[in-house]
Amino acid sequence: MDDDMEGGNLGPYQERLRVFPNMRTKPYTPLMFRLLMRINVRVLFVLMLLGFGAIFYIGASTSPIIVFVFSVCIISFLLSIYLTKWVLAKDEGPPEMAQISDAIRDGAEGFFRTQYGTISKMAVLLGLVIFGIYLFRSTTPQQESSGLGRSTSAYITVAAFLLGALCSGIAGYVGMWVSVRANVRVSSAARRSAREALQIAVRAGGFSALVVVGMAVIGIAILYSTFYVWLGVDSPGAMKVTELPLLLVGYGFGASFVALFAQLGGGIYTKAADVGADLVGKVEQGIPEDDPRNPAVIADLVGDNVGDCAARGADLFESIAAEIISAMILGGTMAKRCKIEDPSGFILFPLVVHSFDLVISSVGIFSIRNTRDSGVLGAIEDPMSILQKGYSVTIVLAVLTFGLSTRWMLYTEQAPSAWLNFALCGLVGIMTAYAFVWITKYYTDYKHEPVRTLALSSSTGHGTNIIAGISLGLESTALPVLVISIAIVSSYWLGHTAGLVDESGIPTGGLFGTAVATMGMLSTAAYVLTMDMFGPIADNAGGIVEMSQQPESVREITDVLDAVGNTTKATTKGFAIGSAALASFLLFSAYMDEVASFANVTFKQVDIAIPEVFVGGLLGSMLIFLFSAWACSAVGRTAQEVVNEVRRQFIERPGIMDYKEKPDYSRCVSIVASASLREMIKPGALAIISPIVVGFVFRVLGYYTGHPLLGAKVVASMLMFATVSGILMALFLNTAGGAWDNAKKYIETGALGGKGSDSHKAAITGDTVGDPFKDTAGPSLHVLIKMLATITLVMAPIFL
Amino acid sequence: MDDDMEGGNLGPYQERLRVFPNMRTKPYTPLMFRLLMRINVRVLFVLMLLGFGAIFYIGASTSPIIVFVFSVCIISFLLSIYLTKWVLAKDEGPPEMAQISDAIRDGAEGFFRTQYGTISKMAVLLGLVIFGIYLFRSTTPQQESSGLGRSTSAYITVAAFLLGALCSGIAGYVGMWVSVRANVRVSSAARRSAREALQIAVRAGGFSALVVVGMAVIGIAILYSTFYVWLGVDSPGAMKVTELPLLLVGYGFGASFVALFAQLGGGIYTKAADVGADLVGKVEQGIPEDDPRNPAVIADLVGDNVGDCAARGADLFESIAAEIISAMILGGTMAKRCKIEDPSGFILFPLVVHSFDLVISSVGIFSIRNTRDSGVLGAIEDPMSILQKGYSVTIVLAVLTFGLSTRWMLYTEQAPSAWLNFALCGLVGIMTAYAFVWITKYYTDYKHEPVRTLALSSSTGHGTNIIAGISLGLESTALPVLVISIAIVSSYWLGHTAGLVDESGIPTGGLFGTAVATMGMLSTAAYVLTMDMFGPIADNAGGIVEMSQQPESVREITDVLDAVGNTTKATTKGFAIGSAALASFLLFSAYMDEVASFANVTFKQVDIAIPEVFVGGLLGSMLIFLFSAWACSAVGRTAQEVVNEVRRQFIERPGIMDYKEKPDYSRCVSIVASASLREMIKPGALAIISPIVVGFVFRVLGYYTGHPLLGAKVVASMLMFATVSGILMALFLNTAGGAWDNAKKYIETGALGGKGSDSHKAAITGDTVGDPFKDTAGPSLHVLIKMLATITLVMAPIFL
Repeated sequence: MDDDMEGGNLGPYQERLRVFPNMRTKPYTPLMFRLLMRINVRVLFVLMLLGFGAIFYIGASTSPIIVFVFSVCIISFLLSIYLTKWVLAKDEGPPEMAQISDAIRDGAEGFFRTQYGTISKMAVLLGLVIFGIYLFRSTTPQQESSGLGRSTSAYITVAAFLLGALCSGIAGYVGMWVSVRANVRVSSAARRSAREALQIAVRAGGFSALVVVGMAVIGIAILYSTFYVWLGVDSPGAMKVTELPLLLVGYGFGASFVALFAQLGGGIYTKAADVGADLVGKVEQGIPEDDPRNPAVIADLVGDNVGDCAARGADLFESIAAEIISAMILGGTMAKRCKIEDPSGFILFPLVVHSFDLVISSVGIFSIRNTRDSGVLGAIEDPMSILQKGYSVTIVLAVLTFGLSTRWMLYTEQAPSAWLNFALCGLVGIMTAYAFVWITKYYTDYKHEPVRTLALSSSTGHGTNIIAGISLGLESTALPVLVISIAIVSSYWLGHTAGLVDESGIPTGGLFGTAVATMGMLSTAAYVLTMDMFGPIADNAGGIVEMSQQPESVREITDVLDAVGNTTKATTKGFAIGSAALASFLLFSAYMDEVASFANVTFKQVDIAIPEVFVGGLLGSMLIFLFSAWACSAVGRTAQEVVNEVRRQFIERPGIMDYKEKPDYSRCVSIVASASLREMIKPGALAIISPIVVGFVFRVLGYYTGHPLLGAKVVASMLMFATVSGILMALFLNTAGGAWDNAKKYIETGALGGKGSDSHKAAITGDTVGDPFKDTAGPSLHVLIKMLATITLVMAPIFL
Repeated sequence: MDDDMEGGNLGPYQERLRVFPNMRTKPYTPLMFRLLMRINVRVLFVLMLLGFGAIFYIGASTSPIIVFVFSVCIISFLLSIYLTKWVLAKDEGPPEMAQISDAIRDGAEGFFRTQYGTISKMAVLLGLVIFGIYLFRSTTPQQESSGLGRSTSAYITVAAFLLGALCSGIAGYVGMWVSVRANVRVSSAARRSAREALQIAVRAGGFSALVVVGMAVIGIAILYSTFYVWLGVDSPGAMKVTELPLLLVGYGFGASFVALFAQLGGGIYTKAADVGADLVGKVEQGIPEDDPRNPAVIADLVGDNVGDCAARGADLFESIAAEIISAMILGGTMAKRCKIEDPSGFILFPLVVHSFDLVISSVGIFSIRNTRDSGVLGAIEDPMSILQKGYSVTIVLAVLTFGLSTRWMLYTEQAPSAWLNFALCGLVGIMTAYAFVWITKYYTDYKHEPVRTLALSSSTGHGTNIIAGISLGLESTALPVLVISIAIVSSYWLGHTAGLVDESGIPTGGLFGTAVATMGMLSTAAYVLTMDMFGPIADNAGGIVEMSQQPESVREITDVLDAVGNTTKATTKGFAIGSAALASFLLFSAYMDEVASFANVTFKQVDIAIPEVFVGGLLGSMLIFLFSAWACSAVGRTAQEVVNEVRRQFIERPGIMDYKEKPDYSRCVSIVASASLREMIKPGALAIISPIVVGFVFRVLGYYTGHPLLGAKVVASMLMFATVSGILMALFLNTAGGAWDNAKKYIETGALGGKGSDSHKAAITGDTVGDPFKDTAGPSLHVLIKMLATITLVMAPIFL
């Protein structure tokens, strides 16, 4: 049905069919699955059982807590398999929907393959570099005697790095895999009932959320118990269990490494396609969003999947992994200093918290049920309130299980009431998460003052709209910083006064208190990720409905879901940056512990009154500015290429506008794909190379000027300043972008002249500017902040 | 000639005259001058002679160096009086020019009066607060015995504060006073010869530059020698001369306090008027810039004077004052630690450097002479190269005199080659200044790649123009940070290895090396300020020429001067932020010395691994974001009011467009004036109150948690993070704004479709966005950075 009817006079239905060509190429399955599928099913089953058996055996030799964690993770994997089966059992709707969905799936999987091909090559290369660094670092006799010589620690770090990278990649793949399959099923269900469509989107999101969180937890648990058994930890002369978590940092770095490139590449892809499609389609040609005549529309829909689903999956995976590892390190350090008899409770606490996270989030996901509604929009509840209800269920359970786990894990006879203090720290974290979500909503929802003022400023032109949006974004950093400040100080003091003291009677629980608050904040991560994944799936479903030209009533349903998705996406970003802010402070402390342990000296202070250390701070903040610049300009440049291609197609194929000729979707897809792969390298390389270079240069400088540990100190200060600037910049970019988007939406509801007015045009300019802010640079900064922390952890031997 | 010919049919000349009403109200002379003028001239002369005599007497009892400084300052004041007389002797041109100029002068002086009225009330109030704080602070017995009890130090600090505020106010007034008189003389001269116009603008700028720099130097010298004589410094049992500079911090704070409000109020005024006038005039009505029919045009021209001239005068005054005081403190500390016999050389060195600055800059200014040119543009040299030639003369002399002064002042027998190292530090500073100017030019001049790329991105619309501009601005922070980093580290090490050691043999010259580099950077401050003042004068002259509808050839001359002015303004901003970055690091060290001296404990470290200190950093960076937000949105809101007023006038007086009715200029002037006075309070109060509140809260928190000096540490970290973020944010705002401005200018030269094309419209949007960036928020941040440093210095007793 491709060329045979060229120029003929067809009915509207066939017309439509002609512009949605069957673009499916050969179905793609990753190599690993293909290998697995070739094996006989029974053999596979036996192999899996053996694998599980081995894991449980190792776990059982480590700690009963690990067995608990394994069990919960495996149950939630089974649950997620049930969720997929449930989603995939839904129908794909009429053929035109399926065809569009196929085109999106092909584009997404094609990009994913190339992108992850590049990333995996870089990861292997970096693995070799890390191996070399660890092989030539200096070790202390103690380390050698405890079995942690050069080569062992090199193997361990590289293995952890590669496993982290692999799991992060799988997390991204899973997020995308389900979303490109769920989108069409949501569109199809929207023809029947809003509630069903909502349920499919939530369960699809829930599937990947459970897999992402479960994989982060089980990966760390497997590494932990393998190292425990392998190194014979806690046996005489061997390593202490309190030092074990330091060996896991490679996992965190692997996860951040992949997440950074996934977010950069995906973010550039999605926004370049979006901006490019809008600039020619909406602005120049005046056709609506997601119109099938726009050659860049498939690229735009593909972008939602690779930019939002895959990247956010990798992002959250990395957040959780980094947070768990840093909390384990701090727990271990504290237990060692307090000489707690059985430190495993403090070390394994984060794994237990996230195991409960899996349980309570599943309850939250399943609490959203399909009721028999009439399918008419007015008759059902507001989807946002349904999601909120599920969130409330999860939060209440989180408070309960958090209290339970602190009592179980953190009770020690040395300080009988310490667990209560830590439970309060957890509460501080949960409240911080709530506050962040509320603040983000206040600044980005058009029900509130700020976005309305922004919309009003559009009435005096493009310029005032941009000034107002930038002011709004800059201003919106204030409240979150105050909240984070209060959370850090109060959780630190709760921990400090918990009653845990070292030999000389000095309280030691402060930092661990902050760590517990971070865990509290992330204790509902799986549910939050579900809500986040819901967004792009609903967005895609709306696109498919629009492209397959369904009746108005269907569109209304997907539009409502899409709007809700925008809000949940924005609030998740607030949540992510809040937890990044807390986690990075932990990672910073973990870095200082790591340096102290490597160099075998105390390293407790980073003094910014030293000029070199101040310069490190300057360079760290500058890194954030430069990275944001390059991320934004990458989108601008790639969008430029899309604009030129779309303009070319409209000129060369004048029939497109009358549905007489089909646009070449795949060309736009491949242009965006190759451009975003090219563009992701520069900012990504900057983020990875600059801390290494700075640390090394100042190490050499310190050597020649007789200043010991100068490299490590400068990197610490660089990390700290980059974190602070990164938090502020990400808050600014995310909020400004979200506010511009919603100011436009507010005007589209008919305010200030409505669609097509001059105010609307100014608001579209703001939205375009906000796109790379909120979906490329902003989310990449979340990952960057944590990656800087993990890279300094792993690369510490270079700076010493 | 106001209303008598209403409706009549007049010739074009009279038409023109009618729209420039005689707006002069009674001529305004500040109270002080009025009092002075009432006194008999001979009495005045005798009084002045007595005053000079007293000053010289006190100076002579202090140090011969002070006498040298006094003499140079007084000579340069005489020189500046000659420059004014020379400028004022030029003709004011035809009556229509004089009338416009009168209207501008009235507006500027009216605003200045109200603004400085408000500022002086706040200053007095703050003076009382400081007095109270110092009266109730704790003192050590040592301090009491050395004559520096509570009440003495309270009087000293408040007196210094008020003197600093007064001098800063005079510096601002002088800048504006000459510019509102020179503008019309430049326009008039442009009718005759380009070279003469250039010379008038340069000499007018030179007048205020000499006054500003001279006043900063002589003010500090007078305070220093008065305190020296009063407290009987260096006599047995009394205070040591090395501690004297700490008493001067109030002067720096007073200067920054006034400069902050001057810059904020002036910046909001100028850009609100500009944006408002452009939005209705250029965009809606399509009339050219500075068209007499635009009711906001006088407000716009007034803005150049109060925003650029007055504010920049106060800004540079406070830069120099802060830098001199911090260098004196560091010199004193170092001399004390090294037990140098005669420390006055190290303490008074900055005063000598700036005395030479006055001399060499005068040579530079006078090197720009009037040659007999034909008055045709092509026949004369490029004005930029004339200014550059003068700058080269000044720079060469600066290198020579700097070497001379280091040899004279910094030679000590303890380390015979130290002066050479310090001379090299000075060279580092001079080279840093050069590098900054070059980088700013690269990013903001349309001869180079970045602005051309920005212009190109305008061709795809408003949105891509904004994205590209923001990326450019963010990216432009990288090179200056690298330069500053190299400058700090290298000058520190040059100082460190200078051979100056304390009793235990530890090198102590490092920080002083950085201080000397800062002085090197500022060693041509008076010439740079001259070039900067040149900008708004030329801009105003262009406006007067446009409004009085002079022939094309005259306009061409002022256009060229205006374009050169834009470049010099942009490069001065780079220079100002570079010196602010260096100076703030010094002020930070001075703060630590101050705290140590107040609390009588060593205070050498600010450890960002302490949670509260990290939180202080977060709050400091957040302060910068919030301040920028409020500064930008103040411009947006005020511009909105202007837009409404101008729209109202065009509707209510339809005759304006045909020159039949005269617009009500004064209403726009008063609207902008009152709005900017209102809007400057919020960001200004934020900047002053937040460090005090943060320091006090954490002091109390530290008291209850048993953490000594917590308040002082948190404030130190706040200061440091605010400095780093402030430098980056200011660089971003200044460069992005300048680049947008010049991208528009580049398109106006005919590139990419030229004036009126879609690209041009997009470029105008960028220019509008850039206006508050580069002329309100950016320059205010320069002042803010240094004010934070001086406020923490003065308020230190609260944090202890």
